[in-house]
Amino acid sequence: MSDVKGKGRGGVTAPEGFHASGVACGIKESGLPDLAMLFSEAPSSAAAVFTTNLFRAAPLRVTESHLEDGKLQAVVINSGNANACTGEKGMRHALCMGSETARAISAAKGIDLRSRDVAVASTGVIGVKMPMDNVAAGIRDAASRLSPHGHLDAARAILTTDTFPKEVELSGAGYLLGGMAKGAGMIRPDMATMLAFITTDALLDPEALRPLLKEAVDRTFNLISVDGCNSTNDMVLIMANGLSGVRPQLEEFRDLLTRACADLARLIIRDGEGATRFVEIRVMGAPGIGEARRAARAVADSALLKAAFHGGDPNWGRVAGALGSCGVSFDPDQVNISIDGVSMLERGSPAWLTRDRLEPPRLGQEIRVEIDLGAGEAEATAWTCDLSPEYVRINSHYTT
Amino acid sequence: MSDVKGKGRGGVTAPEGFHASGVACGIKESGLPDLAMLFSEAPSSAAAVFTTNLFRAAPLRVTESHLEDGKLQAVVINSGNANACTGEKGMRHALCMGSETARAISAAKGIDLRSRDVAVASTGVIGVKMPMDNVAAGIRDAASRLSPHGHLDAARAILTTDTFPKEVELSGAGYLLGGMAKGAGMIRPDMATMLAFITTDALLDPEALRPLLKEAVDRTFNLISVDGCNSTNDMVLIMANGLSGVRPQLEEFRDLLTRACADLARLIIRDGEGATRFVEIRVMGAPGIGEARRAARAVADSALLKAAFHGGDPNWGRVAGALGSCGVSFDPDQVNISIDGVSMLERGSPAWLTRDRLEPPRLGQEIRVEIDLGAGEAEATAWTCDLSPEYVRINSHYTT
Repeated sequence: MSDVKGKGRGGVTAPEGFHASGVACGIKESGLPDLAMLFSEAPSSAAAVFTTNLFRAAPLRVTESHLEDGKLQAVVINSGNANACTGEKGMRHALCMGSETARAISAAKGIDLRSRDVAVASTGVIGVKMPMDNVAAGIRDAASRLSPHGHLDAARAILTTDTFPKEVELSGAGYLLGGMAKGAGMIRPDMATMLAFITTDALLDPEALRPLLKEAVDRTFNLISVDGCNSTNDMVLIMANGLSGVRPQLEEFRDLLTRACADLARLIIRDGEGATRFVEIRVMGAPGIGEARRAARAVADSALLKAAFHGGDPNWGRVAGALGSCGVSFDPDQVNISIDGVSMLERGSPAWLTRDRLEPPRLGQEIRVEIDLGAGEAEATAWTCDLSPEYVRINSHYTT
Repeated sequence: MSDVKGKGRGGVTAPEGFHASGVACGIKESGLPDLAMLFSEAPSSAAAVFTTNLFRAAPLRVTESHLEDGKLQAVVINSGNANACTGEKGMRHALCMGSETARAISAAKGIDLRSRDVAVASTGVIGVKMPMDNVAAGIRDAASRLSPHGHLDAARAILTTDTFPKEVELSGAGYLLGGMAKGAGMIRPDMATMLAFITTDALLDPEALRPLLKEAVDRTFNLISVDGCNSTNDMVLIMANGLSGVRPQLEEFRDLLTRACADLARLIIRDGEGATRFVEIRVMGAPGIGEARRAARAVADSALLKAAFHGGDPNWGRVAGALGSCGVSFDPDQVNISIDGVSMLERGSPAWLTRDRLEPPRLGQEIRVEIDLGAGEAEATAWTCDLSPEYVRINSHYTT
């Protein structure tokens, strides 16, 4: 199982017993793939983290209810329509996607899959009725195409404004972890329009999975920001089918899961709408982990700073501006800020004065901001991208 | 005094006994006006509201200390340099601007003005040393040009990326109120890089002024947003010199002051960096005034929504997305959203489906969003503008 790629497998189908597919069923007017399916040969322990948005979309409510027993065997995901703010009809459509998937997989595989073992996810335009005839046909098509080599088809079918599919695979001691994600805009702390699906053939109980996923998401997906906007449809879901027969050492599994989430999170930022630069923001010396994350997020959310970075400008004054208003308590006279290793602010005084040098350091494609608040021992890292005119152009097109 | 304009007076010099001037002293490399002065013939009651940013600039700390006795007689304001994050040297420079102004006005007017009766304000680049030789020369020049007709010179000299000066004048029963403001970017709730100065010849004690100003600012400047960014230098300052001899009816004065602040706040939004549309967001049915303001601000801060508005797209799904993650508690199934009078969401279900109509309502230069949370009786109104590629271009130029 170590030579995953050599067997034509990878992503969510890298771990033993997972099948995937992706088809185009006409939800997107472009004709691009818009329906993905994921299936495990064995019932899986499962856990998920959902958006905190109050306008939580119908499919998330269905999935949450299906996850009550901590078990899943399949997932159906459509792109091009979020099925959010769609009222009672939207709930009926989300439930129907689950039951149609159970029926189609049962027919295709000769098993008896129940609706409540199917998770449902949607991403796309808000407030538009689901074209259920197309969706039902797509579900039948996708079920018939489920394959242990189908990871890339699935990873492509969940994309919206993304420019490339996002996959990951990692090996543990005797088991594998695979994943796919989508997301390029409306990305921010607390899960924006992003979906991520992680599979593993390790043997884990739902009770063990839940806190591990929550912790990994808090350290990764919840610390990325493209535009500071939060969506109605975000979901990170993990399925562990145990087919490797290996019950993993929890410390190792926690690290692998966090790495998988971090890899997918960074891929989302690299594909940020209109992004041309990747920015890592590391906050140290915070009074607590919550404060460290809050400060890192605040800097990652600053439209002003991200516009400066777009122009290659190491505008540390805008870093200070964002820190000073983020609600974390610290003494400005103890703060250090450096950008790409050049000290900009030292204990509240400028170490580098904008007009004192003829050649200011220009920034490259990878920018590293380091902040020491001098107020404690906690630290956190957030990732973001620059803000470009292209972001605005993408998002001002009529109803993306 | 009713025919203010006929006498060539207006703005901050409309009320009796106020003089102003504006000069270019070389702080800005462009050679544009960059130093303004405001002087009252009589000592004035005064109050101010400052940024909540922890990296509060040196001039604000000086002004706060000079305001301890609730009295001021002059203000010096420079643009082009924020004197923020400039350490101990910055504090010395800000104190020096106050003492130089006291000395120059004392010489020009033959009076004995104390430093502690002078407020200091700065706006511009963060982390750059003040060119104190230029500033001192500018202060002497500005003191010699103080005039009861100088309002427009002053209003021009406080601008940075603004494209027009912002002034207001209002008449009460026997007294006048004047004002000027600057601000075009880094504008958000809790006072961003904006400065506003309000003058009145009404007779008011400092103790009466402070809560009136705080309330007016909370209802106006603290509810505008260009980019959700908060600055180190914001200040709204009011001086009441009593030279009309009229002690105003407080209710009337409160209304006038709020109107003056609202007029200036709206002018700032109309001059938002790169803005092409003006957006009013009215939230009703909130559980309390704090929640109403929080919800209105969250919608005003959504980069995604503002990009959609730039394209003329009435993207109510993005309004819902912002509301659902703003931290205010409500039932999504009770929410109504309308844009420009067209109902979009009714009790959580779409009233207007994006693809159901061939001709979606296109938005004009003035956009009105109305939201009823169905969770109480409180309401608040916020103002913002669209997000355009031009905003990014302005802010990605090297160190604005």
